[in-house]
Amino acid sequence: MPFSTKRVAFALNSTRRWAPVLKTLAVLWIILALFMLVPLGVLAWENDPDVWAFLKAVTVVATLAGASLAATYRTPIELKPWQMFVLTPASWVSVSGFASLPLILGAPQLSITNAVFESVSAITTTGSTVIVGIEHLSDGLKLWRGLMQWLGGIGIIVMGIAILPFLKVGGMRLFHTESSDWSEKVMPRTGGIAKATLVVYVGLTGVAMLGYFVGGMAPLDAVVHAMTSIATGGFANSDASFGAYADAPWLLWMASAFMLCGALPFVLYIRFLRGTPEALWQDQQVRGLIKLLLIVIVCLSAWRVALGEPWFDSLTHVAFNVVSVVTTTGYASDDYTLWGALPVTAFFYLTFMGGCSGSTSGGMKMFRFQIALLMLRNQLRYLIHAHGVFATRYNDQPVSDEVTRGVIAFSFFFFLTIAALALSLSTLGLDFVTAVSGAATAVANVGPGLGEVIGPAGNFYTLPDAAKWLLCAGMLMGRLEILTVIVLLTPMFWRR
Amino acid sequence: MPFSTKRVAFALNSTRRWAPVLKTLAVLWIILALFMLVPLGVLAWENDPDVWAFLKAVTVVATLAGASLAATYRTPIELKPWQMFVLTPASWVSVSGFASLPLILGAPQLSITNAVFESVSAITTTGSTVIVGIEHLSDGLKLWRGLMQWLGGIGIIVMGIAILPFLKVGGMRLFHTESSDWSEKVMPRTGGIAKATLVVYVGLTGVAMLGYFVGGMAPLDAVVHAMTSIATGGFANSDASFGAYADAPWLLWMASAFMLCGALPFVLYIRFLRGTPEALWQDQQVRGLIKLLLIVIVCLSAWRVALGEPWFDSLTHVAFNVVSVVTTTGYASDDYTLWGALPVTAFFYLTFMGGCSGSTSGGMKMFRFQIALLMLRNQLRYLIHAHGVFATRYNDQPVSDEVTRGVIAFSFFFFLTIAALALSLSTLGLDFVTAVSGAATAVANVGPGLGEVIGPAGNFYTLPDAAKWLLCAGMLMGRLEILTVIVLLTPMFWRR
Repeated sequence: MPFSTKRVAFALNSTRRWAPVLKTLAVLWIILALFMLVPLGVLAWENDPDVWAFLKAVTVVATLAGASLAATYRTPIELKPWQMFVLTPASWVSVSGFASLPLILGAPQLSITNAVFESVSAITTTGSTVIVGIEHLSDGLKLWRGLMQWLGGIGIIVMGIAILPFLKVGGMRLFHTESSDWSEKVMPRTGGIAKATLVVYVGLTGVAMLGYFVGGMAPLDAVVHAMTSIATGGFANSDASFGAYADAPWLLWMASAFMLCGALPFVLYIRFLRGTPEALWQDQQVRGLIKLLLIVIVCLSAWRVALGEPWFDSLTHVAFNVVSVVTTTGYASDDYTLWGALPVTAFFYLTFMGGCSGSTSGGMKMFRFQIALLMLRNQLRYLIHAHGVFATRYNDQPVSDEVTRGVIAFSFFFFLTIAALALSLSTLGLDFVTAVSGAATAVANVGPGLGEVIGPAGNFYTLPDAAKWLLCAGMLMGRLEILTVIVLLTPMFWRR
Repeated sequence: MPFSTKRVAFALNSTRRWAPVLKTLAVLWIILALFMLVPLGVLAWENDPDVWAFLKAVTVVATLAGASLAATYRTPIELKPWQMFVLTPASWVSVSGFASLPLILGAPQLSITNAVFESVSAITTTGSTVIVGIEHLSDGLKLWRGLMQWLGGIGIIVMGIAILPFLKVGGMRLFHTESSDWSEKVMPRTGGIAKATLVVYVGLTGVAMLGYFVGGMAPLDAVVHAMTSIATGGFANSDASFGAYADAPWLLWMASAFMLCGALPFVLYIRFLRGTPEALWQDQQVRGLIKLLLIVIVCLSAWRVALGEPWFDSLTHVAFNVVSVVTTTGYASDDYTLWGALPVTAFFYLTFMGGCSGSTSGGMKMFRFQIALLMLRNQLRYLIHAHGVFATRYNDQPVSDEVTRGVIAFSFFFFLTIAALALSLSTLGLDFVTAVSGAATAVANVGPGLGEVIGPAGNFYTLPDAAKWLLCAGMLMGRLEILTVIVLLTPMFWRR
């Protein structure tokens, strides 16, 4: 029966093709289950009934992960490019899905839609919330919201350092170093970078915890806000977001500093620690981000002072909210949509920006604006001098056409995705401002939108369920740098 | 005295450098003055006091033009690239300025700001108006508003065919043919193309006049609407815009057809008439535009029908307003911002589109979207196949990297200009929707924005003066394809 033998061979071959992907996913699920043990322990200690939600969730996740590992125990984890393209979205989707279990099973008893929205918003470090009465959540769930963002934060740094440059997505090849060369035998070095990144990430979070605690936050609040600041996530422990600390300006300034720390390239911290501290402040991307922040903060503070607000209060809240939106954290200390016409439009455009690549922040990212501006400058030179050839340099390195093309393709896809999402949200009846700003804040992984519904004083709870699922898709696409998802949607990829 | 001799030589040399520019401007001013004679004649015939306004305006323009011609009578009109870069904005600004004179001197006695806004909006074929009570204007002024748009329409076609490809701005090199090669001795051929274009333009306008007149419009209304339809300008003779003909669906369908005619590449009409009619419907840009229009019209009509509107009425008004916005005409037959959530967001994005290059319409233009999409498809292929080289073809011709770069640079500058304008409008207190949609509608030369103030049922009259000047700058930058203006703002250009 040659036909049936062929079939079996084909089936076995398919399984073999997918096995390394499944095995890698299972490893991530084990890590997720281990993290669930933290709130589980706290809730057991506090004798809180939410402990059962986490116990059930851990059981489900650990069982599935265990079964997957058992089924693939002989498979080595060696991933080809196409497998990495599949793995990347599969990991974020499955981890978000599993992470939502405690929210469904625990006290707030969220619907599946709301729970998935909350966990996708967390894992993608977006920070939009559908929970009303965050203050009344159990300590375990507050901790879980923070942990999800913290996990998502380290996940995106590792992806930005090790996976995206290898997949050549969105001009990330610019950051292609030995450490991102998976095809060569430099895995030990990649491992070294990953470990150093983890150390920096844990270290920064520790400093933030200590800072917030000394600054007057309760221990649990210090822990959660430290995790969601460094992850540029934006989940807070209050419906008022950071507005709960509006009368403690030192906490706002601390948070601004920690959000900024989360938005800088983590490889630079490693170089900083390994003896080249100037790497951090000589980096063109870092300088660009800080310049942009300073200009915007000075302009908007001047605007508020001109309207009669006291200068220190203006500066504090402008700096906090601008840093929050540009780093794509999404905390709010105040409803900045009530600051007048200019700030609303400014915050709309700031939503797209993003921090640095290789950090926890989302959005377009500073280096893409800088590469695009260099390209535009060259184009102007070309119009004037007709026959010159102009090299583009970034951080004292020549920029290849490949990188420029990648950056440009990313920018187009980024805005096309936002437009498509905004139109889809409109068909569900969302008004213009909610639809357009909601699409932008989701794809850029920021958090708050504009308008009364989803603005900094609003809540995503009131949106129709279909809109929440669309926004989940937008948050995941944004987090995965869009092209990794779009590639999977082309017939070309599956014919390959 | 060698020093002073040098000075004189330098001064003479400067004068010589600018003389060809001034002479070309003077020729354009003469044409403007000749066109002013048309409403002047009508007003004289009707014994309307507005005749004096036109008489004064003609005197001023003719005197200045005459003096300039006299001063440069020996200079041949031979323009170097840098002179064309200077000439292009200088001609649009000076013609708009002179064209505003009858509006200041005539019966409506507009302020300088309002008159300049109205004439810039006319000459750039934008169609935003600050006049309330258009019905009560004298016949001469109604005619003048139409003539200004009609002049602006032929002006932009000639610029698109003969000047922009030569300046290599915004990927227009794609349309570089012998007819746009000024550097070679093909001026007779350019002249031929220009004459043929004029014949087509006059012919189409004539057909539109006849159509509107047979359809039931008063003679003057038929003339003005014919001119503002083919010029994709959008000035109407009523405060209700084309809403005045809402109960004559045949007029709306005719207008849709004429606006579409104005938005197609005029060189294709010439090829159509010269024996290759298939050139018109085999053109990739034309097919793209018509496909886009059909998809949007079907979707929005279905949306309206689903909300319980009668189908023919829905189709008529959706088709009219979608064609009006996409061709950047800017007539409105109805307040489409009251059609619900989806149409508002859809019209916002349609504002950026534009018709075909080499036509009278503004915006991004279809070919740029198509080239950008081809670039994105190639980028996806590249991500999947790693080592391929993929040629881009458009209209069965290879697309050079130069053209792709030009298209991309244009797109970035286009959106950056809109963002900068929106932020500037916000500092004047314009709300988010008015600022963002106002900036977009100005730079894309469409006409109406969104929101109560400048939406299809609103009027730009209520905006602060500073906002009107900013919008004038935006309309002119959009009409001049942005880069021609930005080049002039670089120190590089003047050091050249």
